[in-house]
Amino acid sequence: MRGTLIVLSGPSGVGKSTVVKGVMARCPNLQFSVSATTRPMRPGEVDGKNYYFVSREQFRAMIQEEKLLEYAEYVGNYYGTPEAPLDAALEAGQDVLLDIEVQGALRVKARRSDAVLIFMLAPSFGDIERRLQGRGDTAPELIRERLLRAQWEYTQAHQYDYLVINDNVDKAVDEIAAILKAEKCRTAQRLSYLKEDF
Amino acid sequence: MRGTLIVLSGPSGVGKSTVVKGVMARCPNLQFSVSATTRPMRPGEVDGKNYYFVSREQFRAMIQEEKLLEYAEYVGNYYGTPEAPLDAALEAGQDVLLDIEVQGALRVKARRSDAVLIFMLAPSFGDIERRLQGRGDTAPELIRERLLRAQWEYTQAHQYDYLVINDNVDKAVDEIAAILKAEKCRTAQRLSYLKEDF
Repeated sequence: MRGTLIVLSGPSGVGKSTVVKGVMARCPNLQFSVSATTRPMRPGEVDGKNYYFVSREQFRAMIQEEKLLEYAEYVGNYYGTPEAPLDAALEAGQDVLLDIEVQGALRVKARRSDAVLIFMLAPSFGDIERRLQGRGDTAPELIRERLLRAQWEYTQAHQYDYLVINDNVDKAVDEIAAILKAEKCRTAQRLSYLKEDF
Repeated sequence: MRGTLIVLSGPSGVGKSTVVKGVMARCPNLQFSVSATTRPMRPGEVDGKNYYFVSREQFRAMIQEEKLLEYAEYVGNYYGTPEAPLDAALEAGQDVLLDIEVQGALRVKARRSDAVLIFMLAPSFGDIERRLQGRGDTAPELIRERLLRAQWEYTQAHQYDYLVINDNVDKAVDEIAAILKAEKCRTAQRLSYLKEDF
């Protein structure tokens, strides 16, 4: 059976990475989609594992050759999702988690009917504010920018299939795992079982 | 939060009642919808628990007063789902499981957009045949009738939201529990979380 494509978004400060770690541990058939980027490799990063590290020229060629499912420019660097490895994984029955921001996610939704979109929320918007401020290493201006960004993202969340509230990491992990399991039970995914030869 | 309405169907011989028992044990917030029927009470049955036992006149009045979400006649007796107690339970945040046959389920789907329809399949149609025959207490003619009915039901299953294959009771229970959990995460169910006052 073909794998399931989960697209997860959530504003900065929502605690997404902890939940993602939990989901990956819980769902052994789920793999993380590797993005392509033009930003320089950091110490400890591995090409093809953390990112596909490419030059700006290579990235532009990927755009022109329509090899990217979605891409965005962020702080002067490009980030994008190569579609061929994604399809190869799904075809092989692997479930794939795409952790991308809202604009990219909505582009994926428009292009692929097989994508299941999950938006992660904080219990309240005040939590996001507190978490961003609590990090202590972020300039006030950047915090403000991220908050405005998060506010805009909230206005787009109604376009997602599911909303998961991160009021408790285990509960959020549980809900995403349930969504993945339930999506595999959708009638459209299992029509072959109805082709009985009576 | 309003409860979730699960409508479960599956042909005779698919092993549904064992799975339903498992689901009820797993999901403490899920209650079984009590049907109204005109068939006589059997020893050990309790009015209002197993069924609401009513006369044919009472049942016809319920039909005319549109108090039934769906109803069907089966072997000379009426069976139906009173809508008021169902809505009261959902309103109180209870999840409700409606275990009804295909025609009733499709009527519920047409009338209520909040209904989540699950059809239970056997791993193969041969399994249904074997299970019906294996019971040993059913006349060959009745087995044949049930098989034809099951075949017809399979042709309607594509109209359900989910298909659950009962190749393993625990797995089937697991899948239905996941569907219930996932449905509660649907964006439409959680829109109130997006009404933030920035």
